[in-house]
Amino acid sequence: MLTFPISEFQERLHKTKQRMEQIGIEVLLVTDPANMNYLTGYDAWSFYVHQLLVVMVDEDQPYWIGRGMDANAAKYTTWLDEEHIHPYADHFVQSTIRHPMDFVCEFLKTKKKDKKKIGVEMDAYYFTAQCYVRLTQGLRNAVLVDGTNLVNWIRIIKSDLEIEYIRKAAKISEKAMQVAFDTIQEGVRECDVVAGISYAQITGTEEYGGDYPAIVPLLPTGEKTSACHLTWTDEPFTEGAPVIIELAGCYKRYHSPLARTAVIGKPSEEVYRLSEVVIEGLNAALDCIKAGVTCEEIEQSWRKSIEKNGVKKESRMGYSTGLNYPPDWGEHTASIRPGDKTILQPNMVFHMIPTIDLGPIGMEISESFRVTENGCEVLANFPRELYVKPNIRLA
Amino acid sequence: MLTFPISEFQERLHKTKQRMEQIGIEVLLVTDPANMNYLTGYDAWSFYVHQLLVVMVDEDQPYWIGRGMDANAAKYTTWLDEEHIHPYADHFVQSTIRHPMDFVCEFLKTKKKDKKKIGVEMDAYYFTAQCYVRLTQGLRNAVLVDGTNLVNWIRIIKSDLEIEYIRKAAKISEKAMQVAFDTIQEGVRECDVVAGISYAQITGTEEYGGDYPAIVPLLPTGEKTSACHLTWTDEPFTEGAPVIIELAGCYKRYHSPLARTAVIGKPSEEVYRLSEVVIEGLNAALDCIKAGVTCEEIEQSWRKSIEKNGVKKESRMGYSTGLNYPPDWGEHTASIRPGDKTILQPNMVFHMIPTIDLGPIGMEISESFRVTENGCEVLANFPRELYVKPNIRLA
Repeated sequence: MLTFPISEFQERLHKTKQRMEQIGIEVLLVTDPANMNYLTGYDAWSFYVHQLLVVMVDEDQPYWIGRGMDANAAKYTTWLDEEHIHPYADHFVQSTIRHPMDFVCEFLKTKKKDKKKIGVEMDAYYFTAQCYVRLTQGLRNAVLVDGTNLVNWIRIIKSDLEIEYIRKAAKISEKAMQVAFDTIQEGVRECDVVAGISYAQITGTEEYGGDYPAIVPLLPTGEKTSACHLTWTDEPFTEGAPVIIELAGCYKRYHSPLARTAVIGKPSEEVYRLSEVVIEGLNAALDCIKAGVTCEEIEQSWRKSIEKNGVKKESRMGYSTGLNYPPDWGEHTASIRPGDKTILQPNMVFHMIPTIDLGPIGMEISESFRVTENGCEVLANFPRELYVKPNIRLA
Repeated sequence: MLTFPISEFQERLHKTKQRMEQIGIEVLLVTDPANMNYLTGYDAWSFYVHQLLVVMVDEDQPYWIGRGMDANAAKYTTWLDEEHIHPYADHFVQSTIRHPMDFVCEFLKTKKKDKKKIGVEMDAYYFTAQCYVRLTQGLRNAVLVDGTNLVNWIRIIKSDLEIEYIRKAAKISEKAMQVAFDTIQEGVRECDVVAGISYAQITGTEEYGGDYPAIVPLLPTGEKTSACHLTWTDEPFTEGAPVIIELAGCYKRYHSPLARTAVIGKPSEEVYRLSEVVIEGLNAALDCIKAGVTCEEIEQSWRKSIEKNGVKKESRMGYSTGLNYPPDWGEHTASIRPGDKTILQPNMVFHMIPTIDLGPIGMEISESFRVTENGCEVLANFPRELYVKPNIRLA
């Protein structure tokens, strides 16, 4: 079931160890599920219990530590041999007296790593405060060092095979968005449109199936378009109200996000005008992308364009994306925003999503792109426009 | 958009403050998205950035703190007035220099709560180690106290309206499981069956729509049934291989999980026998449930039944469920396992899922139930058996 050749996993591990040596740590505890997958292939919905990889600079394989009932998932999905799969007993799960990190402390002692400098992903979703406190208490002779995003920064440049997966995800995103456009109609319930989007995301194409995206479809309508992270209701769509659709295709955990805004029937002048401003700004930003440009320079192009049109926007307008798990398909590394001086390199992948909300109206038209030497490859091939759905009333 | 009467939210808040006073804390920082929803109604896919409620024993409403672009979601989905919605600026998002908890510290200072005993949910998924460290550094005169699961333990007993939502979720779980049974067939791809399941989960019924479950459908097949948290692939189903389907219906964030095992064509003697053992054990466990019984007593009934049949099982066999967000529909309170002395009370809801794996074969047949005075109400009405799918070869 390996999703990449073992050599690619080993190359990723090699780069991880190089970074570890640069910051002087001998052990890295990798708790981010995307980072666990990146280094070993591990893929299961088991991140609701504590689990991690232990990467040691002097070992050829990381150790997987997780719940007993997930050890077989580690055997099936990773390149690790059985000696590197260390399950903990079930009485560690959601217990008030035992914690899985106690098990990790004991493991590090048997490996004589309990007096070392150990990196931990301090701000990773599933590395809780309690994990940190238990490690601190159990490893009194160790020094815990912040390793947040250490692996994420390696993930930021994709291999050609990763890009191939992301292109497949982009195809799925096109199909899912088309389903949204085809089914949105006055009187149709929001949930029925999202059901169709989800079907398209998972069924994928005839050649390959889809995976679950790290974020469910977001579908705010009407004045709720100014609250871009709302999901959906079972209310019917109404004529004239804008609808934001943000979704991603996902293939083997690799994402290609895409957002569009639709209106059923005639859009108001204000909505139409806003879509023109957003598209002009998006085009200006895409035009300036190539290897060597910085993230903040892209944002400047965008801001210059929209300010010329009298619109201001404060939040970041994009972020690195790729391999991920819920709750986020963003990589938490480079952001397209003022102050981010990350220099674009070929095979970086971003989701550029300039969310605009003007009082009660919000607008999202986005693209995911791959950086190339001389420009960028926009991943999904989908009309970059406000979608106006003819309103044909249902009988 | 409120999902409950304000009086119900206030009642929940009242109980929360009572617990806070019992453990001597004046402020509770609520980061678990399910707890945030429980106390205020807040519902958006925004838990990928740091957000929380600040509950103060001397205030009538909690404060919502989150990202600026999510403030409108707080306005639309909660009963809080605008004064209790405190967004932070976008430059706090995934920054290497600023952290949202710095904003929280400043907020607590302005409210003169920075020298108090403050509860934090130490082992909640999105309360990271970094959150804790920043609070510790920013609130040097405060005492941070562990408030993990404080609100969860209030959630464990459901109101009648919550039960109504869970019953609606159970109806959706029946429909989704039926779609799985109807579409599983030799030669059909796993992803296509899951696409149908997901469609059914989200479209719901004609009367009401479905919400996204906190866990995607799990669908291990063949020998992978011994790895119960695997999701799906785009491989076709094969004759004779068992398939585990674990899913939940979800209505307004309330879950009713359900698992079944299916076989295409004739099951092996071993698989059939195992299903009989599991069902007998499940029935024995269900028979002993009523208010006043402890969680560990349920497990004893189950264990006695399966051991009589020569099967042993180590992991817990159930947990409290209800309102939740990814990555878990479990509530992290009572577990049906040895040592758990929680006394059952009416309107507690559990998912009883005795996962069994015997070497290469795994089996799951589960039920969600509501505790009543004299027994239990099994929530989904779905045949409690190994599903044998006649193998009709596709042309």
